[in-house]
Amino acid sequence: MNKLLISLALSLMVSIPVFGQDWDREEQDPVATELWAPVPPKVTPGDAMAPPSDAIILFDGSGFSQWEKAGEGGAVGWTLNEDEGSMTVVPGAGSIATKQSFGNVQLHVEFRTPSELEGEGQGRGNSGIIFMGLYELQVLDSYSSTTYSNGQAGAVYKQYAPLVNATKGPGEWQVYDIIFMAPVFGENGRMIRPATITALHNGVLIQNNVAILGPVEYRGQALYTPHAERLPLQLQEHSNPVSYRNIWVREL
Amino acid sequence: MNKLLISLALSLMVSIPVFGQDWDREEQDPVATELWAPVPPKVTPGDAMAPPSDAIILFDGSGFSQWEKAGEGGAVGWTLNEDEGSMTVVPGAGSIATKQSFGNVQLHVEFRTPSELEGEGQGRGNSGIIFMGLYELQVLDSYSSTTYSNGQAGAVYKQYAPLVNATKGPGEWQVYDIIFMAPVFGENGRMIRPATITALHNGVLIQNNVAILGPVEYRGQALYTPHAERLPLQLQEHSNPVSYRNIWVREL
Amino acid sequence: MNKLLISLALSLMVSIPVFGQDWDREEQDPVATELWAPVPPKVTPGDAMAPPSDAIILFDGSGFSQWEKAGEGGAVGWTLNEDEGSMTVVPGAGSIATKQSFGNVQLHVEFRTPSELEGEGQGRGNSGIIFMGLYELQVLDSYSSTTYSNGQAGAVYKQYAPLVNATKGPGEWQVYDIIFMAPVFGENGRMIRPATITALHNGVLIQNNVAILGPVEYRGQALYTPHAERLPLQLQEHSNPVSYRNIWVREL
Amino acid sequence: MNKLLISLALSLMVSIPVFGQDWDREEQDPVATELWAPVPPKVTPGDAMAPPSDAIILFDGSGFSQWEKAGEGGAVGWTLNEDEGSMTVVPGAGSIATKQSFGNVQLHVEFRTPSELEGEGQGRGNSGIIFMGLYELQVLDSYSSTTYSNGQAGAVYKQYAPLVNATKGPGEWQVYDIIFMAPVFGENGRMIRPATITALHNGVLIQNNVAILGPVEYRGQALYTPHAERLPLQLQEHSNPVSYRNIWVREL
Repeated sequence: MNKLLISLALSLMVSIPVFGQDWDREEQDPVATELWAPVPPKVTPGDAMAPPSDAIILFDGSGFSQWEKAGEGGAVGWTLNEDEGSMTVVPGAGSIATKQSFGNVQLHVEFRTPSELEGEGQGRGNSGIIFMGLYELQVLDSYSSTTYSNGQAGAVYKQYAPLVNATKGPGEWQVYDIIFMAPVFGENGRMIRPATITALHNGVLIQNNVAILGPVEYRGQALYTPHAERLPLQLQEHSNPVSYRNIWVREL
Repeated sequence: MNKLLISLALSLMVSIPVFGQDWDREEQDPVATELWAPVPPKVTPGDAMAPPSDAIILFDGSGFSQWEKAGEGGAVGWTLNEDEGSMTVVPGAGSIATKQSFGNVQLHVEFRTPSELEGEGQGRGNSGIIFMGLYELQVLDSYSSTTYSNGQAGAVYKQYAPLVNATKGPGEWQVYDIIFMAPVFGENGRMIRPATITALHNGVLIQNNVAILGPVEYRGQALYTPHAERLPLQLQEHSNPVSYRNIWVREL
Repeated sequence: MNKLLISLALSLMVSIPVFGQDWDREEQDPVATELWAPVPPKVTPGDAMAPPSDAIILFDGSGFSQWEKAGEGGAVGWTLNEDEGSMTVVPGAGSIATKQSFGNVQLHVEFRTPSELEGEGQGRGNSGIIFMGLYELQVLDSYSSTTYSNGQAGAVYKQYAPLVNATKGPGEWQVYDIIFMAPVFGENGRMIRPATITALHNGVLIQNNVAILGPVEYRGQALYTPHAERLPLQLQEHSNPVSYRNIWVREL
Repeated sequence: MNKLLISLALSLMVSIPVFGQDWDREEQDPVATELWAPVPPKVTPGDAMAPPSDAIILFDGSGFSQWEKAGEGGAVGWTLNEDEGSMTVVPGAGSIATKQSFGNVQLHVEFRTPSELEGEGQGRGNSGIIFMGLYELQVLDSYSSTTYSNGQAGAVYKQYAPLVNATKGPGEWQVYDIIFMAPVFGENGRMIRPATITALHNGVLIQNNVAILGPVEYRGQALYTPHAERLPLQLQEHSNPVSYRNIWVREL
């Protein structure tokens, strides 16, 4: 499309817009649209059980060195299963938090709800991935047990139901691959860019860049309160012996 | 935080904002924030080689029934490798396109660049995943060969370099898990919501909800032109014998 | 920055990324980044009381030809004030809706809450702009009367408080300039792109591209239900004699 | 919609999703969705020539106290027109920059291209609003003179043409109301949230939350380079005697 043609089209009062440019695309040097730097850092990808080379390993089965009791600090009271490289929630031992703080991240975490069925609804295999200690992606055994949609596995708890229920059965290892973007606060502490979350559950898209409404609340509406740019990640103790393994995070 | 406290804070000329509500959170009925419907459809997730139960299988190694020659239609001229359930680009045979059209999708595709190194830069293991036949995520052997950042594997070709280079070596199977959202056009054909792409390469985030600038162009700038809401997906023939396997798509 | 420099930087193991390209920016032809088409349609902008030339005039004081009673259709029961080119809500006469349906729009609307103060909180000067009959930007006299933040003038009702309170006093004409993007629904009726709203109140930004949670609800949480791409715009009757004038909309 | 109905629907194999919740909406206490704090700060809105009460006044015609020569600092070499409260670009005097730095802002600026027509295309009434000294919204007399679409008034220069051409003629005062969000950079300096811009030109939407590609470039493609969260705002000297008045900014 050249300027002559555009002028012609305009002079003919053509109302359908014309899409093009004032140069011959074929004559453009393709080098002009090549950008050689920055060179993306090389990352050795992982596989089923190994994290990518630039990940911070939060849990590989060898111990709780990256974790402490949430809120008050101190030793983690959960069970370490060295034989299978996992950890299991101990009811009453409290939630746990990373010692390190994080903002925008890609998180990989594997979890398993108990094979022995106990409880119903929110009482069966309940735990959670709580970004910044504030924004929760639900962990639950909602395979055959019924609960509210915005509270089942893969929900942004009480905010967004998962797009589909891609859960595996009790006793099976499951995977979350999550992209979490921290909120941005502006003047007077007002939220000017919400936290967002995109999540795959066992490889299936369940949250598609949804705008989080505020910190998770069991009762009442969520509401943003300004906070630090980085805060510890938490795993929730909710009275059920859910297990975790192979947890790593990449800072974005 | 109740109204009395807020009033008190205001009367004390407190300039730090107070965050809260006019009801006692502890008294709220948690049932009020439960949403029970719609019930997310149940999807049986897949594993390394099996797609989720709600996926449309585009290629499982059994044949080209879902594909045709791009542009002109007719039989696919690529090689079918039934032994390993893959297909391989035949240089000169042209790109291929799905018979079905797609808009917003999650796409899983595995590819392998040739183990025998031939060519350099854009001439080594070049192919591409072209959503709607217009928006390309680059396939390339950029493991040890150097090219421009916005043209290496995982780039939105000539638009966005990948965040990191998570490529595997030639001859190895690699995976893209992609969330592609189609553009929305408004009055007079103007683009009012851009296409976006989020992609994991071998499990590592390489594109984070980037706003695509328009259809892929080798020469000159990209520019949106209005088009249908659904169009066929293409795999590019670029003279190099790249292989593909295990391709499935989920309509969002 | 040229390729030699980049290679040099890499060979020196420089860990700080280098930003640049493999061509000399100064040698690029600036014409290559010029796009001459489509030519943006020419619009004659308006002024304080005149709409832009491409706007659909919904109300200019001459009558209710663009409107009908919301829900059931039929004649508008509000008062027409031909002397000042405005209309006033008649309590009990019901909300009104445009005969035409709209999706993505820029809306300009002017409103005035009663100069005679009656009622408190949500009972004073209450009305609303309801996009698609579903998504409400609140109209209220919240100048000196106190109410909940997410219910005051400029709130996405019960979802997002305005960023600031830019309201004028009772009896004064006020302006909303609003960009509303309709939600996009995908497979199974699931919401895949939320409705968003950006709004200026008397020229001051009060909503910044917030993601709407679903249709407005007085009781309980909002929840998306799939609907048509275009639906009538409503103005709410909420028992208070709020006035409107100079209403126009541009389809995006 | 209650649980019984949902169960019923499921038992009947109804494939159309049901939208609802497990509580009776009519029985919900509307107070539960009221959020009373934070109370949005009160802002007295302005009018045609007066800024809102929380704005930082960058230019009101009284002098250049908020400005310095861009790049090198020192006195502004532009003309101050105290009679009409404006300033005019002096060709050769260089661009000017605010002494204060800004990130996310709402900006109001009025400009006037010369009534005496000189030059064509990019040579007629050319100037620019350059956020952070990097991201440019074009100022130009493109009323009757022809230029490339992504270079006319209201373009994100060489990135996004305006949605429509809402320009006024030479010698007339025009208004931009702009919402600019600064980019966010992550690890290794990579851009993880692009800068965005929404703009009204003489009250007409011309840019709708577009994702900026990088700093403005006259030659070659744009490319993000990490920078500070706040940087001075610039007004461009481009050899043409464009005038400005009534400039204010609100930090978001």
